[in-house]
Amino acid sequence: MNREISLIGIGQTKFGEWWERSLRDLLAEAILKTLDSSPCTPLDIDAVIVANMLGEWTDDQAHLGALTASLLPHHPPALRVEAACASGSVALYTACALLESQRAQTVLVVGAEKMTNASGDAIQVALMGAADSEHDQPCGLTFAGIFALIAQRYLHDYGLTREDLSIVSAVHHRNAKGNPFAQFRQEITVEAVSESPLVADPLRLLDCSPVSDGAAACILSTKFKSPLRIRASQVSTDTLSLTERTEITSFQSTKAAVERAFAEAEITRDDVRALETHDCFSIAALVNLEDLGFAEPGRGIEIYKKIFEEDEYPFFLNRSGGLKACGHPVAATGVKQVLDVAKELQTAKLRFGLAHNIGGAGATCGMHILEYTNA
Amino acid sequence: MNREISLIGIGQTKFGEWWERSLRDLLAEAILKTLDSSPCTPLDIDAVIVANMLGEWTDDQAHLGALTASLLPHHPPALRVEAACASGSVALYTACALLESQRAQTVLVVGAEKMTNASGDAIQVALMGAADSEHDQPCGLTFAGIFALIAQRYLHDYGLTREDLSIVSAVHHRNAKGNPFAQFRQEITVEAVSESPLVADPLRLLDCSPVSDGAAACILSTKFKSPLRIRASQVSTDTLSLTERTEITSFQSTKAAVERAFAEAEITRDDVRALETHDCFSIAALVNLEDLGFAEPGRGIEIYKKIFEEDEYPFFLNRSGGLKACGHPVAATGVKQVLDVAKELQTAKLRFGLAHNIGGAGATCGMHILEYTNA
Repeated sequence: MNREISLIGIGQTKFGEWWERSLRDLLAEAILKTLDSSPCTPLDIDAVIVANMLGEWTDDQAHLGALTASLLPHHPPALRVEAACASGSVALYTACALLESQRAQTVLVVGAEKMTNASGDAIQVALMGAADSEHDQPCGLTFAGIFALIAQRYLHDYGLTREDLSIVSAVHHRNAKGNPFAQFRQEITVEAVSESPLVADPLRLLDCSPVSDGAAACILSTKFKSPLRIRASQVSTDTLSLTERTEITSFQSTKAAVERAFAEAEITRDDVRALETHDCFSIAALVNLEDLGFAEPGRGIEIYKKIFEEDEYPFFLNRSGGLKACGHPVAATGVKQVLDVAKELQTAKLRFGLAHNIGGAGATCGMHILEYTNA
Repeated sequence: MNREISLIGIGQTKFGEWWERSLRDLLAEAILKTLDSSPCTPLDIDAVIVANMLGEWTDDQAHLGALTASLLPHHPPALRVEAACASGSVALYTACALLESQRAQTVLVVGAEKMTNASGDAIQVALMGAADSEHDQPCGLTFAGIFALIAQRYLHDYGLTREDLSIVSAVHHRNAKGNPFAQFRQEITVEAVSESPLVADPLRLLDCSPVSDGAAACILSTKFKSPLRIRASQVSTDTLSLTERTEITSFQSTKAAVERAFAEAEITRDDVRALETHDCFSIAALVNLEDLGFAEPGRGIEIYKKIFEEDEYPFFLNRSGGLKACGHPVAATGVKQVLDVAKELQTAKLRFGLAHNIGGAGATCGMHILEYTNA
């Protein structure tokens, strides 16, 4: 970072099914809470970055930058970014660039999605817009199907069982118990995951993050200060199509982003005490831990087992509940992860945390490292 | 600008109806031409900003940052921005911020749209995503309807006739004769415009920019130099809904952006010798001239009349043919305008030019000032 960027406000809606509310309502709630939590007034916001993937499908609404700017009295410059499920982190990256460029001193970032406005079938089709329309969509794959292919290969290569995989969701649900913003706060057993309805073999219903409505926002500033700092902001990409990859049990975009993020923050892996990773499906949580370098290939499950069996965390890992239990309103997720890392660092007085957000099957990876300077 | 940003490469497809080609094909052609025109190699591109509004509707394709990065051998960081018809200029603004932040030294910006993949009706619905879904869409307005309301009010307030309005499209078509990338290169008479089929009273078919396919790209760099420089990059917003405006014959976003752009470039209105404005409908061309300060309210038509009757340009005005004759592949337009200003400055050895791009009914305005230092 060539400027000191503070995280000066955070706010979100509870993630869930908000049948009676619009995308605009969710945006407004998250923004209001964020402004309330910050030392600045609405008029201090000099740019707005909105993350959204599905507005056209769910609300017949594009042009969400202007819509969101309309919610503020002075209509600041605004734009919408989209990178599928990585839209939230890409919005944060864009905000960091604006701040570092000195085009803005205080930027509002908000990610929102109102998925229940469309039918489940329509949402599956819409989400497949995140995959390659010429190479991956035509064979009829859904994202559950894509991650099932990854899981099949992973279980085969590393000798994991179906029960191993189930531990991941059980841990995430247990973590969400204390999170008032999580869509699902009840514990689930390993058996419940293994016995839940089959979605795409070997993935079952309770391996999959849900369809969710929600919004999450934050304010980043070079003008106002807080003990929470953005120490690294990185975006990386890989081939959009799985058919062009040399392997599918690892995401190159995560590997590239994390090395650049550690270099930017001038820290090492050992410094990270709180980690939120993008567990859109249980298998992804294992792949992420390995790509991020916290486990050797095939051994991510050992960390989940230790947490599950001994309630012992080598570092905070998806303590929010992850995408599985918090819910996954697509473009809100990348922003919400940063909020969770911030809260974890503050609450436990930890210094460094990392938020890892991917779009599609890792075609985009957005990554942020936060520092809590009062730790 | 806090860094010297050069425009080091430009390229575009011809705008038109490209039935046999995909969005990806158009992106690839524009990018290849742009790289060919530049002093850099693909590996020098360290970020990609893609402007696109309608990919989900026309190509079942979101996540266009990663798709476009996939077209390059090294998959640089990439993201897609959207601000309706202002997507192109907003992408350029984002690229400038990335360069000024020093997160990138050389950025590829590409805007693309493949509108003929969807039916005309579907495109009208999709485009209305640029308007307010709760306040402006429900009454059944299309964008032709919105600009017809503006035109009705404008003709009433300022006493213009239907024939006056027709002069605008006649000038734009005449201008496009020499532009090999324009969708329509034939001259049209004032009578032909006035007698063309009614779309939304008083606007007729030849008042309206067409549905188009096309892509336009450029490379901006702080590392490689060229005599073409970006001297200002501004984005401004207004209320998304027309119902919240105090007047509809003028766009506040243009007025805000142009003052900030002149201040940023440290030039005055008199320095601008080439101007491309966003004439999505003929009436918009008049409103733009007035909002930009080149004519008093109600008197923009005098400039068009002078050009039409005396072939005398006080400054180059939509010499490309504007949106009416070049075509308007939504998100490509804002990028293409900057390409046209660059070519006009180079060809006529002029120093300063301005590109003016709006989204929706001026809810977003993106503006760029270029300098040709060899003028």
